[in-house]
Amino acid sequence: MKIFDKAIESRMDRRCTFVALGGGVIGDMCGYAAASYLRGVNFIQIPTTVMAQVDSSVGGKTGINHRLGKNLIGAFYQPQCVLIDTDTLNTLPDRELASGLAEVIKYGLIRDAEFFEWQEKNMHALLARDPSAFAYAIKRSCENKAEVVSLDEKESGLRATLNLGHTFGHAIETGFGYGQWLHGEAVAAGTVMAVDMSYRLGWIDDSLVKRVHTILQQAKLPTAPPETMTVDMFKSVMAVDKKVADGLLRLILLKGPLGNCVFTGDYDRQALDDTLHAFCKS
Amino acid sequence: MKIFDKAIESRMDRRCTFVALGGGVIGDMCGYAAASYLRGVNFIQIPTTVMAQVDSSVGGKTGINHRLGKNLIGAFYQPQCVLIDTDTLNTLPDRELASGLAEVIKYGLIRDAEFFEWQEKNMHALLARDPSAFAYAIKRSCENKAEVVSLDEKESGLRATLNLGHTFGHAIETGFGYGQWLHGEAVAAGTVMAVDMSYRLGWIDDSLVKRVHTILQQAKLPTAPPETMTVDMFKSVMAVDKKVADGLLRLILLKGPLGNCVFTGDYDRQALDDTLHAFCKS
Repeated sequence: MKIFDKAIESRMDRRCTFVALGGGVIGDMCGYAAASYLRGVNFIQIPTTVMAQVDSSVGGKTGINHRLGKNLIGAFYQPQCVLIDTDTLNTLPDRELASGLAEVIKYGLIRDAEFFEWQEKNMHALLARDPSAFAYAIKRSCENKAEVVSLDEKESGLRATLNLGHTFGHAIETGFGYGQWLHGEAVAAGTVMAVDMSYRLGWIDDSLVKRVHTILQQAKLPTAPPETMTVDMFKSVMAVDKKVADGLLRLILLKGPLGNCVFTGDYDRQALDDTLHAFCKS
Repeated sequence: MKIFDKAIESRMDRRCTFVALGGGVIGDMCGYAAASYLRGVNFIQIPTTVMAQVDSSVGGKTGINHRLGKNLIGAFYQPQCVLIDTDTLNTLPDRELASGLAEVIKYGLIRDAEFFEWQEKNMHALLARDPSAFAYAIKRSCENKAEVVSLDEKESGLRATLNLGHTFGHAIETGFGYGQWLHGEAVAAGTVMAVDMSYRLGWIDDSLVKRVHTILQQAKLPTAPPETMTVDMFKSVMAVDKKVADGLLRLILLKGPLGNCVFTGDYDRQALDDTLHAFCKS
């Protein structure tokens, strides 16, 4: 509403352009405002965090949170362009930087084994903010994202795989309280849970589980949800996840060798229950 | 926000359908909520007023008001279907019925001279709620609207002509206070102002001015803005109209014989000023 107030008071007309300069929240919020202001004006994304550069600024998902769940209100609305300047990362706090790496790691796990192996070798360079390592990681992440989005913009299936770890992660962000953990931190813990569940289902072998733990620890990311999260907190938030269809929660799970995943509601309920109980004290 | 709260609490998922059952405000609000909920779900329009049946339910414009102007926040979002049952008009208050006729009259003025002439002959039947007269008026209005929208969905030009009288009318609704006058009442007064201005510019002859007055009076619609409206009130609201581009207010004005109009910013400013002063005491 503050964006609308300011835009109207400034008499911005239909030919104006909204510029989202900042991280993922700014991009999502500004994009949704651009989609809605005068029923849609131009907008440009200038992401300034790793998270926004490798993921949220690309693909046209915009939105805001509802007190009962994350990103429940929004629009599919493509920016006129996404302008990434990696120099903006020079002043990014370490924790924010690590948070973005959770999404970089995701691309390797769901569809790009070679990229995952590159990350295993170059995580130290990324943490040291080596410019060429970062340029490569961002470019390859954007390529992965753009490829998926171009095949399935409105998320009828394939695009959902980009949400590995996000269903558990959103539950953590909502249950634990927005802002307590950064998005990528919640995604990292969520990824560990999704990987644990995939292993319980017999869909991946334990060496992959170990590699996921190792790379997330290297990236200084959490590998378990906050201790205050309970099974009921997970269940109540996951019940309103956007990927629920006909009451059935569909999840992104790894299946097969590194780089392969599925988006499915066809899994043993017990494995989900066991996973939640394994990660929660109550 | 109430719609979102209820939808989330009811755990409505992406496969749900929002049904807008009511008048234009319900349809616009429900449509915008459908466009935004989970980034877009299906919706169906079931309009129950003349205004909604002949105009607002068709064409995919959705939106809500901002305290500084009407329909400034919204989306272009098409319903899966529009279901019109003219029996719903049986219980519509007379004033609501007349309000809808303002948009019916509009189609005649901007593009359908033959339809306008039919209305001149059949206004008494419409006011008496003659079912066959109504069925014809609604069908022909929807055909006109659908034709314009299919040629220019996102309102780059032609579609704007559907807003004859709306720029003045929106100023009345905002300045006088939402809900004081019905939308069609404000549009009727706005249409008289647009027609008056067209005549001042020498674009139409006085017989058309008279016919517009006569048919609006027959339909029991206002032919002048409320007495409390001032020139400054008009100017301040019109400055944030969605049709302003580069600071220039574009208007829909009649030009030539009955059934012809233009959407233009190329008019003598003095004629606009003269029009505002002619209809306002201060």
